[in-house]
Parts: sequence; structure tokens; C-alpha cells
Amino acid sequence: MAIHKLCPKFEAAMELLGKRWVGLIVRALMDGPMRFKDVAETIPNVSGRMLAERFKELEAAGVLVRNVYPDTPVRIEYELTEKGRSLAPVMDAVQQWANRWN
Amino acid sequence: MAIHKLCPKFEAAMELLGKRWVGLIVRALMDGPMRFKDVAETIPNVSGRMLAERFKELEAAGVLVRNVYPDTPVRIEYELTEKGRSLAPVMDAVQQWANRWN
Repeated sequence: MAIHKLCPKFEAAMELLGKRWVGLIVRALMDGPMRFKDVAETIPNVSGRMLAERFKELEAAGVLVRNVYPDTPVRIEYELTEKGRSLAPVMDAVQQWANRWN
Repeated sequence: MAIHKLCPKFEAAMELLGKRWVGLIVRALMDGPMRFKDVAETIPNVSGRMLAERFKELEAAGVLVRNVYPDTPVRIEYELTEKGRSLAPVMDAVQQWANRWN
């Protein structure tokens, strides 16, 4: 069979999505904006520091935004961008596969 | 909003799919059985040792099988199982997202 290089766009996407916790963070935020602490509670066995690093990477990648509301005390929420929300079909496909095989 | 724990099946699936190179290996094998060397050629910047470790994990997870053909010299090919092939919708969803956003 022909040997071909993988699509570089696919590679770049997997490089991001393949990072630990990324799928779980995106999945959690699909339901709407959340505070950091509340996302952390849905994800088992990860340190706040690791999770904060992933949030920064996802923000840099344009997948989520950090919204700061000037309440007292200040309220900070994370929200998926359109780019992040459009990962829904990926998350759904993973869930369907997981339901079938796990 | 309600805080809920993520689905443990989704978690387990992401734990596997979220490992580095897994998406690229599965994607490469979607076209049919391949020798280790030929998969390795489609994936940039990964050592043979790292890749071999991932192959073992994917074999243990039932995603691929290792077929040994008693030719001279012996021929070894890796092939997706039904479980592995049924990742096609996940791979397609990632590709579509990648095309749109990268």
C-alpha cells in the first residue's frame, strides 16, 4: 500500500487534543462557562497546577477564554470559544466509542 | 449550573486516545495493515522505542493486533481490530475540526 505522510492539520489538532486532561476540560465546559474550581472537581487525580497549565494552553490555542467579572469578590469563569464549542462532534464521537467498547 | 462528574467511560477512552501518538498510529492504520517501519515513517519526531511502547498499549487495549506471517524473512504487520476501526468517526471529527481551525 502507499505510504503517505499524515495531514499536518490533523497532526496539529492531535498534538493539542492528545494532551492529558484536554478532552476532559473541553468536555466539562461544553455545558457552559465554569469556574476553575468547578472544572477541577469534575476531573479526578489532577493537581490544580497541572490543570492551570492546560487552561493556559487552551486559552493560547483559542479554545477557551477567561472571563473576569468585577463582582465582589471578583468572579473568574472559563468559557469555550466557537473553536472550542466546535469540538462537540469530536467529544460526541469519543463518547459513543466509549459507550460501545468500555 | 449543576456540577457533575464526567462519565467514567469517556474518561477511560480519553486516557487511551489522549496519549501522545495514539491518534496518529490509529489514523495511519485506518488505511489497512502496515509494518511497524511504515507506520513510523508517517509519524514525525518519535523514537522507535516510544512508538513500540504505544503499539503494545494499543494491542493490550484491543485496538490493534500484531499479525506474524511465516514468510522468509518473517513479516509482521499491525492491523486495527473492529474496536480500532470503529474509531473512524473520532478520527474524522478531529480531521474536520482541524481543517476548519488550523
